[in-house]
Amino acid sequence: MPALRFPERLARLQTALRRRKLSALLVTQPGNRNYLSGYSALDHGIQESSGVLLVPARGTPYLLTDSRFYLQAAEEARGFTVQLYPHGLIAFLRKLLPQLGIRRLAFESHYMLHATAARLQKTARGLDLELQPVTEMVERLRVVKSEDEIEALRASVRLNEQVFQEVYPAVKPGMTELEVALALETTMRRLGARGPSFETIVAFGPNAAKPHAVPTDRTLAPGEMVLIDMGLVLNGYCSDMTRTFVVGRPTQTFIDRLRVVRRAQLAGMNAIRAGVTCREVDLAARAVIRDAGYGKFFGHALGHGVGLDVHENPLLSSRSRKQLRSGMVVTVEPGIYLPDWGGIRLENMVVVRDHGCELLNNDLTFL
Amino acid sequence: MPALRFPERLARLQTALRRRKLSALLVTQPGNRNYLSGYSALDHGIQESSGVLLVPARGTPYLLTDSRFYLQAAEEARGFTVQLYPHGLIAFLRKLLPQLGIRRLAFESHYMLHATAARLQKTARGLDLELQPVTEMVERLRVVKSEDEIEALRASVRLNEQVFQEVYPAVKPGMTELEVALALETTMRRLGARGPSFETIVAFGPNAAKPHAVPTDRTLAPGEMVLIDMGLVLNGYCSDMTRTFVVGRPTQTFIDRLRVVRRAQLAGMNAIRAGVTCREVDLAARAVIRDAGYGKFFGHALGHGVGLDVHENPLLSSRSRKQLRSGMVVTVEPGIYLPDWGGIRLENMVVVRDHGCELLNNDLTFL
Repeated sequence: MPALRFPERLARLQTALRRRKLSALLVTQPGNRNYLSGYSALDHGIQESSGVLLVPARGTPYLLTDSRFYLQAAEEARGFTVQLYPHGLIAFLRKLLPQLGIRRLAFESHYMLHATAARLQKTARGLDLELQPVTEMVERLRVVKSEDEIEALRASVRLNEQVFQEVYPAVKPGMTELEVALALETTMRRLGARGPSFETIVAFGPNAAKPHAVPTDRTLAPGEMVLIDMGLVLNGYCSDMTRTFVVGRPTQTFIDRLRVVRRAQLAGMNAIRAGVTCREVDLAARAVIRDAGYGKFFGHALGHGVGLDVHENPLLSSRSRKQLRSGMVVTVEPGIYLPDWGGIRLENMVVVRDHGCELLNNDLTFL
Repeated sequence: MPALRFPERLARLQTALRRRKLSALLVTQPGNRNYLSGYSALDHGIQESSGVLLVPARGTPYLLTDSRFYLQAAEEARGFTVQLYPHGLIAFLRKLLPQLGIRRLAFESHYMLHATAARLQKTARGLDLELQPVTEMVERLRVVKSEDEIEALRASVRLNEQVFQEVYPAVKPGMTELEVALALETTMRRLGARGPSFETIVAFGPNAAKPHAVPTDRTLAPGEMVLIDMGLVLNGYCSDMTRTFVVGRPTQTFIDRLRVVRRAQLAGMNAIRAGVTCREVDLAARAVIRDAGYGKFFGHALGHGVGLDVHENPLLSSRSRKQLRSGMVVTVEPGIYLPDWGGIRLENMVVVRDHGCELLNNDLTFL
């Protein structure tokens, strides 16, 4: 992708900062950090940051980190001044902010710990500095993907499909959920992914009734359902896909329920185009499941955005009245989950376009 | 491990709550949640909680989660009342807290987003509820491990050593960092680990100068150094270990520097016993490196606690005057990192005992 993108993204953020009369934004969320700077380090949890960006409303942005990450930061974040905070971020900001003349500092309220914000507030009181919590200023820029980003997401989805196709024929009765998950994640890495974009879900039979099942050492029995929810990270961009199938002969009940979920998925995809609300899309799919009598067994939202993070805006939820925009990339993943029986979920990724949606997956054949 | 441990842990926390005149604690940190309840789900980042505990100062504790995690929560958190929050945590608390007569609610300031705390504060104002940010109430209980936990950590360390020993002979010139990392993580899973306890670090030659290097497709040249920092999760408990070695003939410089790091590690281990401060241990190791002329190339703390989380208290840092206590489990991991040349780090895990420390690793042979 062209190196130009970072200056453009920064310029858009700086314009937004000036419009809101903010002197600078402290960017703590790892995906936001990566989007603006190219610095791709992950946090080992929010309690162990691998650095923050300080983006002033005008002029050169800073990347502040510690010695463990200095070389990577300097290599990746070319347009940024990289500085180390040997005694922690807050102590460093106490010196840097007055030097830069920052008076109104915004921070990411949705990715800063209460304890950190409290310490920052204490520092601000001593500096004649006004703190402004903001939410999702950078996420708003990220929600509509450029064609370069869509191409990167398409490549991620394709590799994910390829991994599934390689492992699928090897799934046989007697294998454990853990073995299948391991085969999937090993294949991802062997084929060039950085790794899974989330903990791979492999659930057999009744375990599939847990939408977020953790793989166990349960072995697959003939005729049992297999639910696989998998994604990978390729060149920074995530994929996310779910398949549910049976090795051997499915029961008529399984076939019937799978068809309900598939029809719900198609109804959701058919409802997607720029200008439609998230709620309308969710309800289009949900109505199919409800009319088939499974309404109370579909407890989660229909889908979510995907990009540098595997879960991004927008959320395709019956409670969201936000409108879809062309260039958003979302999952469509209806499911029904019946305790003791199992669960079926089908998930694809699509690009929102002006007059419909573009399917990034490649699931032409189906039951 | 005996099921008794959860009631005991809860009782200790409830005593601490009553002593501080708190009506309840909202437990959001995943390791704390697991420690108190046995509920082992991880968060997909802090923005996507898989549930919280509400532990009142007296009586039955609650586990609040959403429908995706209900079955797992009910299976694992036996002593807890599991309830779902279909419209989110805050909306649910608005009803539950008054029912339970909770007037002073503590929350984990070090594991709650500023945005979430702000919403909770808004709710509290409508309820005559006082909010009290606290830090590390549960971590304080976790910092000293029981003998059962030490046995679980020992098993985790042993499996980690076994994984290293299986992969080590296969590391040959021409392999990439990514291939070695993949072999390690695959072997972990094949031998029964849940997975790595952090992103495995494999760094060749100059890449080893980055203490938190991310594996790349760089291939190993004969005589280059190999730094591997790896850990796994077994039965919930983490291990963490670093080895640095050369395939082929090491240079005298490498041997000399490795010996400096090894002497520093032994000095650190020798300094460890109950009653000594973290600072003293860090400085005992740091002095060896400084006296050898590498002081400014050892930028991080000497070690950290390990348990259900891979990074726990205490931090063996020159800035910490906290005392070690018998039953703490810590890493001892000095290193020197020279840009363009590479880096050497050696890391073991030890149990703090009254009169010294017990090595959990098994690294008798050494250069």
